[in-house]
Amino acid sequence: MNAQVDIQSRNGLDLVQMGQTVEALKNNPSLAQFEFRASNQWVNGGENRSTIRGFYGAGAEDDSRAEDFVFTNGEPPVLLGNNEGANPVEFLLHALAGCVTTTTVLHAAARGITIRNLSTRLSGNINLEGLLALNDDATVGYESIRILMDIEADCSEEELDDLLSFAKNHSPVCNTVCRPVSVTLERI
Amino acid sequence: MNAQVDIQSRNGLDLVQMGQTVEALKNNPSLAQFEFRASNQWVNGGENRSTIRGFYGAGAEDDSRAEDFVFTNGEPPVLLGNNEGANPVEFLLHALAGCVTTTTVLHAAARGITIRNLSTRLSGNINLEGLLALNDDATVGYESIRILMDIEADCSEEELDDLLSFAKNHSPVCNTVCRPVSVTLERI
Repeated sequence: MNAQVDIQSRNGLDLVQMGQTVEALKNNPSLAQFEFRASNQWVNGGENRSTIRGFYGAGAEDDSRAEDFVFTNGEPPVLLGNNEGANPVEFLLHALAGCVTTTTVLHAAARGITIRNLSTRLSGNINLEGLLALNDDATVGYESIRILMDIEADCSEEELDDLLSFAKNHSPVCNTVCRPVSVTLERI
Repeated sequence: MNAQVDIQSRNGLDLVQMGQTVEALKNNPSLAQFEFRASNQWVNGGENRSTIRGFYGAGAEDDSRAEDFVFTNGEPPVLLGNNEGANPVEFLLHALAGCVTTTTVLHAAARGITIRNLSTRLSGNINLEGLLALNDDATVGYESIRILMDIEADCSEEELDDLLSFAKNHSPVCNTVCRPVSVTLERI
């Protein structure tokens, strides 16, 4: 029984469903087109709240979520807020950490690598002269972001280094940060 | 009394503290250097959890937060998960929405513009052939992100357009997405 379980699932991912998904995308690449969404309402000062639920993908509107996900952005007192929530640049680190982790776990499963433990610590530097328009030479946004990863897996050091390099290059959030992505802002 | 309140606070931001912060940064630009952080622990499959609390900024470690902020990344069933949380690319939209909103509110306050309402809807397109390494020509990460903003403020249309253009150019998360930002991944 254990052997059967091991074959059908690795790193918590269903290998049968994974194989079927990859086959379906190979046969019909349009199924790989996804649109993700968020709605946000300003509350006051540095506080605002996002609602996330529906998305389009695999050729259909998703209806798997019975409730909205709701997240509150805030700011600490030193940035004129009351810690109503983590702030947006911290949420970006959460998104990046999660995406690099999930991409690593996914491609490990595809390679037959079992991960025993994976944790990361992220830090990113920002010069707030950019946000505040106090210095035209200041970078606006993160100057750089560093990810320190502690990972244990049943493969060689070389295989692990290769997996992590591959995961970084195929992580959607990491590539949204590493490479320039067009953002348009329109009033309605 | 109302007049006094209006002078000391706009859009929920303390104008006195804002002025003092700007003066302090002009006198000592090193105070503008911030380091934000997140720690993340993989749980299983596409589920992982971030802890956010401390950061460095304004010349000191911040100790204003009595508790950790904790956020869970998950994936929907179509992406091999159980909706344990929003997924990382959705959290990125939340971060972007919040940052553009807060940057707009902040610079509106600095310009003497009172905002009555501000909400946004974001959508972003991703071709999952990139994540899954099925097509070398596929973009990994968001291909583009669109922000639709509904805003009401006590200024002219021209002033509003100028404010929004300025806010987009000075939003840290928007610039982290729009421009290439170095991400390093190291094992520990």
